[in-house]
Amino acid sequence: MENKGFHRSSLNSLHSSTSDEDMVEITEGTLDFKISDDDPPIDAENDTEFATYNGNGIHGSYNVMDFLDVPGVGTYEDFNTIDWVREKSRDRDRHREILSKSKESTWALLHSVSDAFSGWLLMLLIGLFAGSLAGLIDISSHWMTDLKEGICVDEFWLTQEQCCWKSENVTFENPNDCPKWRSWSQLLLNQSEGAFPYIVNYILYILWALFFSLLAVLLVRNFAPYACGSGIPEIKTILSGFIIRGYLGKWTLIIKTITLGLAVSSGLSLGKEGPLIHVACCCGNILCHLFTKYRRNEAKRREVLSAAAAAGVSVAFGAPIGGVLFSLEEVSYYFPMKTLWRSFFAALVAAFTLRSINPFGNSRLVLFYVEFHTPWHLLELIPFILLGIFGGLWGAFFIRANIAWCKRRKTTKLGRYPVLEVLAVTAITAVLAFPNEYTRISSSELISELFNDCSLLDSSKLCDYKNDDVNTTNGGILPDRPASKGVYTALWQLSLALIFKAVITIFTFGMKVPSGLFIPSMAVGAIMGRLMGISVEQLAYYHHDWAIFKGWCSQGADCITPGLYAMVGAAACLGGATRMTVSLVVIMFELTGGLEYIVPLMAAAMTSKWVADALGRESIYDAHIHLNGYPFLEAKEEFSHKTLAMDVMRPRHNDPSLTVLTQDSMTVGDIEAAINETTYSGFPIVVSRESQRLVGFVLRRDLIISIESARKKQDGIVSASRIYFSEYTPPQPPTSPASLKLRTIMDLSPFTITDQTPMEIVVDIFRKLGLRQCLVTHNGRLLGIITKKDVLKHIAQMANQDPDSILFN
Amino acid sequence: MENKGFHRSSLNSLHSSTSDEDMVEITEGTLDFKISDDDPPIDAENDTEFATYNGNGIHGSYNVMDFLDVPGVGTYEDFNTIDWVREKSRDRDRHREILSKSKESTWALLHSVSDAFSGWLLMLLIGLFAGSLAGLIDISSHWMTDLKEGICVDEFWLTQEQCCWKSENVTFENPNDCPKWRSWSQLLLNQSEGAFPYIVNYILYILWALFFSLLAVLLVRNFAPYACGSGIPEIKTILSGFIIRGYLGKWTLIIKTITLGLAVSSGLSLGKEGPLIHVACCCGNILCHLFTKYRRNEAKRREVLSAAAAAGVSVAFGAPIGGVLFSLEEVSYYFPMKTLWRSFFAALVAAFTLRSINPFGNSRLVLFYVEFHTPWHLLELIPFILLGIFGGLWGAFFIRANIAWCKRRKTTKLGRYPVLEVLAVTAITAVLAFPNEYTRISSSELISELFNDCSLLDSSKLCDYKNDDVNTTNGGILPDRPASKGVYTALWQLSLALIFKAVITIFTFGMKVPSGLFIPSMAVGAIMGRLMGISVEQLAYYHHDWAIFKGWCSQGADCITPGLYAMVGAAACLGGATRMTVSLVVIMFELTGGLEYIVPLMAAAMTSKWVADALGRESIYDAHIHLNGYPFLEAKEEFSHKTLAMDVMRPRHNDPSLTVLTQDSMTVGDIEAAINETTYSGFPIVVSRESQRLVGFVLRRDLIISIESARKKQDGIVSASRIYFSEYTPPQPPTSPASLKLRTIMDLSPFTITDQTPMEIVVDIFRKLGLRQCLVTHNGRLLGIITKKDVLKHIAQMANQDPDSILFN
Repeated sequence: MENKGFHRSSLNSLHSSTSDEDMVEITEGTLDFKISDDDPPIDAENDTEFATYNGNGIHGSYNVMDFLDVPGVGTYEDFNTIDWVREKSRDRDRHREILSKSKESTWALLHSVSDAFSGWLLMLLIGLFAGSLAGLIDISSHWMTDLKEGICVDEFWLTQEQCCWKSENVTFENPNDCPKWRSWSQLLLNQSEGAFPYIVNYILYILWALFFSLLAVLLVRNFAPYACGSGIPEIKTILSGFIIRGYLGKWTLIIKTITLGLAVSSGLSLGKEGPLIHVACCCGNILCHLFTKYRRNEAKRREVLSAAAAAGVSVAFGAPIGGVLFSLEEVSYYFPMKTLWRSFFAALVAAFTLRSINPFGNSRLVLFYVEFHTPWHLLELIPFILLGIFGGLWGAFFIRANIAWCKRRKTTKLGRYPVLEVLAVTAITAVLAFPNEYTRISSSELISELFNDCSLLDSSKLCDYKNDDVNTTNGGILPDRPASKGVYTALWQLSLALIFKAVITIFTFGMKVPSGLFIPSMAVGAIMGRLMGISVEQLAYYHHDWAIFKGWCSQGADCITPGLYAMVGAAACLGGATRMTVSLVVIMFELTGGLEYIVPLMAAAMTSKWVADALGRESIYDAHIHLNGYPFLEAKEEFSHKTLAMDVMRPRHNDPSLTVLTQDSMTVGDIEAAINETTYSGFPIVVSRESQRLVGFVLRRDLIISIESARKKQDGIVSASRIYFSEYTPPQPPTSPASLKLRTIMDLSPFTITDQTPMEIVVDIFRKLGLRQCLVTHNGRLLGIITKKDVLKHIAQMANQDPDSILFN
Repeated sequence: MENKGFHRSSLNSLHSSTSDEDMVEITEGTLDFKISDDDPPIDAENDTEFATYNGNGIHGSYNVMDFLDVPGVGTYEDFNTIDWVREKSRDRDRHREILSKSKESTWALLHSVSDAFSGWLLMLLIGLFAGSLAGLIDISSHWMTDLKEGICVDEFWLTQEQCCWKSENVTFENPNDCPKWRSWSQLLLNQSEGAFPYIVNYILYILWALFFSLLAVLLVRNFAPYACGSGIPEIKTILSGFIIRGYLGKWTLIIKTITLGLAVSSGLSLGKEGPLIHVACCCGNILCHLFTKYRRNEAKRREVLSAAAAAGVSVAFGAPIGGVLFSLEEVSYYFPMKTLWRSFFAALVAAFTLRSINPFGNSRLVLFYVEFHTPWHLLELIPFILLGIFGGLWGAFFIRANIAWCKRRKTTKLGRYPVLEVLAVTAITAVLAFPNEYTRISSSELISELFNDCSLLDSSKLCDYKNDDVNTTNGGILPDRPASKGVYTALWQLSLALIFKAVITIFTFGMKVPSGLFIPSMAVGAIMGRLMGISVEQLAYYHHDWAIFKGWCSQGADCITPGLYAMVGAAACLGGATRMTVSLVVIMFELTGGLEYIVPLMAAAMTSKWVADALGRESIYDAHIHLNGYPFLEAKEEFSHKTLAMDVMRPRHNDPSLTVLTQDSMTVGDIEAAINETTYSGFPIVVSRESQRLVGFVLRRDLIISIESARKKQDGIVSASRIYFSEYTPPQPPTSPASLKLRTIMDLSPFTITDQTPMEIVVDIFRKLGLRQCLVTHNGRLLGIITKKDVLKHIAQMANQDPDSILFN
């Protein structure tokens, strides 16, 4: 993509200005500074160097609305950063206009009321759409996942669960006997036992997986390249004020919705939770077009997108509060309190829409419902913290390995064959996954099973305990029991599954299919947690006389819940990869609905974050933002170096001086020359080159459009026409060409800082106010400019990274 | 309190500067602007008008740490606003120093690690202390509340519940028969039935109430005047950067802890939830003194206070997540993500500390535990929204009435007799409360009872339904039943209680005792909600054939839960008074632990906020902030007027020009004169009065302290000594007195804006960066200054309020 540098660092592109800095400044000195209302100038607008104090409160205005009649003025180009201050000002202007009109007529009053409520309506619609799409994706991916193993005869549109639910033969003793559901070998060969049917099933499993993934990657490649990946890094960047046209468009929405189901069903080690956030944001962006307020304003639209992200998490996990906190903590940049409240509304509507669709068939809101409420002991914090350390280590390792692999994909031939890559990874995944029953089932089913606590009648291998000495009348409490053969088999299979998942996810995340990271990392953590849970349980059973178990874990007590360990492990790994904190704990808390397990979850999440942060500061999303060179100014990291604005600003030492425009001495031709000679996206306007006293700032895009439009529509505008940015236009001799007044397109309140301002404060200002650029002065003289890109490059440089990795403005 | 105005609006206090503005500016023009590294000045520091580009990356520094050796420099006076930017810079400097030292020795490394973890340790301590104090207050107030009615013989330290819990005579049929608990009439007269014992109990109830409240008000008045009220308005103001010394001190903590229990026990219509936040913040503030990092830095300390506020709410309601959101939404000003995570930790520790103290004797975390999970019907949203409207109306009415009363207290003789006022209100409350059993019990017990759903065996009046046709084998579902006599009596008593509580709270909130508003407003709402719940229930029972009930509320169904209505009503009234949104819903959600009732709660909270906002924008806390004239810049309200910085800045039109100091032409005597002639808390420093080119900004306090210290310690500093703020000090003739270099105390990066900057942007900058003042320029010349107070006054003026109501800086 093209580098539309504001002030490119390459010296040759810097326009060498006339060297008039050494001229003695006489002209300005003769104009004195005057605060006086007697003897006013003839023209009240004569404000070139006089401060006008006409005393009547409101005068002048922020000149943004004025030039909006020229199409294109005030909009942004693709892959550019928005100016938050300007966008918010425009919205306030719009709001003021509606308010002032509302007093005029009933119709305008109604318009004003509907405008005020349009935000809520939009949230309602986003909630409904996000919930419905999530339901659709859930149902389709369930069906397709089951299709890999078999089909429901007569009613092919049913999933295995639905198919067997309807069957009468399913009894408590015989939960898997379901005549209507046929595996492919049963259907094709009429036999299910033996090696040959197994191979048939195996091959069909692989073929279906390849078919689904091929379809997904072809759809993504040909129709919506932005539909790949999880989308969270890009959404974070977009919310911080970047423009990527089409990233949240209708094609991305349609293709991502379809391919997400396909990708999940193909058995690849990926989840649908991250992409669901992208889908919800697409809904939000598209629905914004229904309301002028949001369609026209990039800042307002980003508020809506923040809320949509919350709705996305809400439907992904059935956790509305967790979703809002995720949006606040992880993805949002500008999050006023009003947005918090609206996000909460959108998240709730989405969650309840999904519940009424009921894709899991259990009327439950949450993805992994946990039923146990067994208390835990303080000493169990030791294994929980160990799980946290594992999660942190895994997270840090995963991020490094994944980024290394993605870099390799970018720089080698590999990146040219995305379809082949997807097919290869799918084939490897399917081949390795089928033989192990814990990898054959979908990751979310696996997590569900690992989170589950064993009841007495549970027939799964993981619950194959020796029940000989269990006193079933013991008040419903099932004590810790010795593991039987099934559990040991499960331990082996889970260990293999752990290695498989941990490795394959590195190669899967970042391919050209929609792929989320939540479920794979939770699966890795849940397996590790369950393994540790069973180990601790067996240790406590066989060695309940050890000192550490004494007093709380006597024989016959139910002291260890392996399912809880799986939950804690899942939280730890997810935290290690994404560095979520509060939102992670709240999402996990909403799964159980009780405060009991908050402390274990928090201990694991905290440890995991500390360990992972010690090994590398970036979360997987930040690492991908960095990898792609997006201009994202991290709000969480403090800039800690002792540099000053003068070390960062352009022009640098040795560079030619800054290209500036003067307020009343340049012609159309001069300015066009300045535009053509440079690539800067804006120019400061000064009183005179000699004084370097700053008047305002004008954007290149606005300047080009305005001059072009004036040349076309306004009489007598030629190259020799003078351009006035000043308020006062001196009378022209009749022979000279008509002059062009462009004060309206000038930003009269550009942000300025002194060259001695510490960069930590500059970074803070850029972050908090959402600036695109800031002018630097020294003792009242304009000295240079700092753009967001300069700031990002400086941060990268200070962190010993390549500053040229920042690609966009 | 003294008005230390930055730029007082009263003209006479404005220092009339020399009228040298009309002088022709020649001097500056002769010094030309030069960006060149060949031919450098002899002294590299000769930077008066040259931009030094010596190219070696880091040079110069933010000069804050440098002058910290003079005691007092860099600190604030009482009732002043802190400079967030400066405080944060100081913290970063400190952090950098520790980091750079940590590489030198193992000891320094350990220091650096302990410094990094001190925040977490502090959070742990805050959680422990806040939880313990909350437990202490709970236990003592329970005991004293019961003391008003009677005493446990032999074991006087037990509350009624504990006393009767131990008695064997309590059976299911006879829950109130408890021989060890004696009412005062039983103890003194040995009889409990009849008019005389009733009067004895009545009188002792009043006397105890008067005794408790007298003790509370005397303690508050004599030892800690800041311990009165809820404290939330002041905490909001302090968190926004204001300094009120002693407000969070140890005396306030001790007295507030003691008097809170007394005030609650006196039966006044007040709660302990708001004051608990104040208590937790006191703990936070005091514990900050253990760690240099937090003791010395006002900004860091405010991060801790935000977390402490979360811990306070967490123990008040047993809602850790709600507490964090309350702190985020309602009280905090600067809330980085790091604080969110730490707040959550502190809130959890506090909640679990409280639970292990177990003051309610039920091992429950939450104040009002709700056990029912009956589903609600969509049509019930109508009464829920009606409750929301009631809550909004009540909130708006309460705020107006309470503020009017508080104003009257401030302006009339009433304010001079706080003890009498408290005694009078207590007497009236006690006299009116005793006869009605719903007002005699404490408000929190009342709310508990109103939230409760009637089981079949419930013997309270509110559950006195006709049970004739109840089929008890109906799967545990208790259908709607016709109300019996008890319910109708309860309805009357509740109606009277509603009026009583609604009126008396207006006069109670704001008296010189600790008083929270959460419980009284929840009580009003809960009563209204229960009344409406019973009405709808009876309506549905008797008219289940009406169209609106058809299909979901047939006879024998359990369709209306009056307890849910009480919950919704409580949320609505609390929302109307405090304008909480997300935190309100999350706190109420944490009471029930289920997502079922989020939608009703949200509908009521939304309606309540809209209705109340339509009648008055300010919450009760904001109204009190306003009433007290605190300089609080509301972060939620957008400034919507079209004024510019030039309309707000000082000096105004007609005023003498701004007092500025020059960087190298003033003597100690000149500057002392300028200090004495003005009351401004800071002075801009310019190159020369003629050019008005800004160099920096110096604070009055720092200037006075530095000059005083120099006169004492430095040889040869007399009134004729020149003061240099410039980097370059020209060589002095040997006869002239020693010069004084004060560049280090100057802020080299003062914030500047242009005079054309819209005020909406200025307000945004002040809010987001936490500024104290901002300098205004026009075309590169210094023109004026805007302080936080100016901004607040302007906002008040634009809202048609008295700008002189803003008292402090």
